[in-house]
Amino acid sequence: MTRTAFLTGITGFIGGKLAAHLADDGWTVHALVRKSSDAADIPGNVTTHIHTGDLARLTEILASTGPDVVFHLASLYLADHKAEQVDALVASNILLPAHLAEAMTAAGCRDLVSTGTAWQHFGTDAYNPVNLYAATKQACVDILRYYHDARGLSVVTLELFDTYGAGDKRRKLVQLLVDTAASGETLGMSPGEQIVDMTHVDDVVDAFVIAARVLADAASPVMRSYRLSGERLTVRALVHVMAEATGRPVPVKFGALPYRKREIMVPVGAGADETLPGWTRRRNLRDMLATLVRPT
Amino acid sequence: MTRTAFLTGITGFIGGKLAAHLADDGWTVHALVRKSSDAADIPGNVTTHIHTGDLARLTEILASTGPDVVFHLASLYLADHKAEQVDALVASNILLPAHLAEAMTAAGCRDLVSTGTAWQHFGTDAYNPVNLYAATKQACVDILRYYHDARGLSVVTLELFDTYGAGDKRRKLVQLLVDTAASGETLGMSPGEQIVDMTHVDDVVDAFVIAARVLADAASPVMRSYRLSGERLTVRALVHVMAEATGRPVPVKFGALPYRKREIMVPVGAGADETLPGWTRRRNLRDMLATLVRPT
Repeated sequence: MTRTAFLTGITGFIGGKLAAHLADDGWTVHALVRKSSDAADIPGNVTTHIHTGDLARLTEILASTGPDVVFHLASLYLADHKAEQVDALVASNILLPAHLAEAMTAAGCRDLVSTGTAWQHFGTDAYNPVNLYAATKQACVDILRYYHDARGLSVVTLELFDTYGAGDKRRKLVQLLVDTAASGETLGMSPGEQIVDMTHVDDVVDAFVIAARVLADAASPVMRSYRLSGERLTVRALVHVMAEATGRPVPVKFGALPYRKREIMVPVGAGADETLPGWTRRRNLRDMLATLVRPT
Repeated sequence: MTRTAFLTGITGFIGGKLAAHLADDGWTVHALVRKSSDAADIPGNVTTHIHTGDLARLTEILASTGPDVVFHLASLYLADHKAEQVDALVASNILLPAHLAEAMTAAGCRDLVSTGTAWQHFGTDAYNPVNLYAATKQACVDILRYYHDARGLSVVTLELFDTYGAGDKRRKLVQLLVDTAASGETLGMSPGEQIVDMTHVDDVVDAFVIAARVLADAASPVMRSYRLSGERLTVRALVHVMAEATGRPVPVKFGALPYRKREIMVPVGAGADETLPGWTRRRNLRDMLATLVRPT
């Protein structure tokens, strides 16, 4: 049975991997993309629709494509925002999902897998945002809650910690270390005692697919968040594991930089909610890191 | 000692009364107004600043006026929104307070009294929005929480139930009944068994002033919500009280209309939080209604 998915954020790292995986797996895949998106970033077998920002147009697109599930991965991520970025954070992380929910309920689409961040919880299970990015993600959940309560939208939000994998163009920790190992140039870092929580992108893709199944199997609309907790280790340990796994030195000078403002030293736990039913982490950090760096 | 206040929403019913009260009481009052605002709706002794939507401009205004406290009362209220109103709800109820918080923390203003709604709680103390309006109000709290946690903004949010008073141009329940008593034309209503929670606008104004004092007295930044619960009675009882208080018939046909979708039959309680310290309701519904309708 062919299923149809509608995605946002496919030019991003995780969205691109998810779109490719779904297409390979026989799904019909539609995606909302910005006019300015690079065609090279769009996986084959994906039908794209231009995001004009117009809600009526988005509703038409969803009504005509009739997806079984919408995967919402588009977001503007900023660890530390500048004043002039407030508008863009609200537009990307609150207004767009509000449009999606409004359009879905108007077009008769029930199931939405949305993306949150463990940064909504700074050292506590309750809401305590690390940054404005995380606050806009919480605001998104609150907006979706209305569409659930009043209009029967069925939502699973996956709260992500750190993610990594081959082909990652984001300037995130693992890729930074891979580049350092490749170049041999010393990287100045914070003292490195903070604990990170790492999940490979293929395990994240698995989680999105499982979340869609959870929604499809639900007799009545759900409204749940699950945290995708992976392997936990300090940044110092991560550097050590990478050097061991790849047989290549990773020249890092710890303490060359201060910790970030509101640095998370210990991430929030896996969640008071049960973990996503049916999901287990299958990729091992040590093995996956070995594939990212060519040995000398 | 002259204190300086900066207000949004002064062309609204409560904001206008609050601005006039503060000016009468010797405060220096500044306000953010839309370019399209009617000068007739702006109380005397208020210095107005045009809201351009530009955050840098707002920051300049706050830096140059240096308010001791900001009262944020501007909001777009829609009991039931249409799809084409989603953008305006997000802009008014989320983006504007985000701008205010960003500008305040940049300009060195610490204290903010914000306005919420009891509709953030549909039959429960926890968050459960009656409508998208209430969801955007909750999203506003989420955003303010970041500015509290990360930047020391000090916030009291007053969650309002039903409000009323002389000169109310909003098409709300009490004014509708006043108009009905005046015209003598029968008003078709719902069955009228829902309980409403009524507070006179002068008591609401008192609460905003007290909230500002709570913030001024706080040694360290606070982040609190208080519900302003007033007198509770069914709509049927309210009509009865009004007819008695004014000695005029209020011709209403109950059951001519259905209840609203997601009609609140019993409002949420006064709050798990303590009530606003120092605030007591001083105006009595029966007495105040008598002043609204001229006896025959």
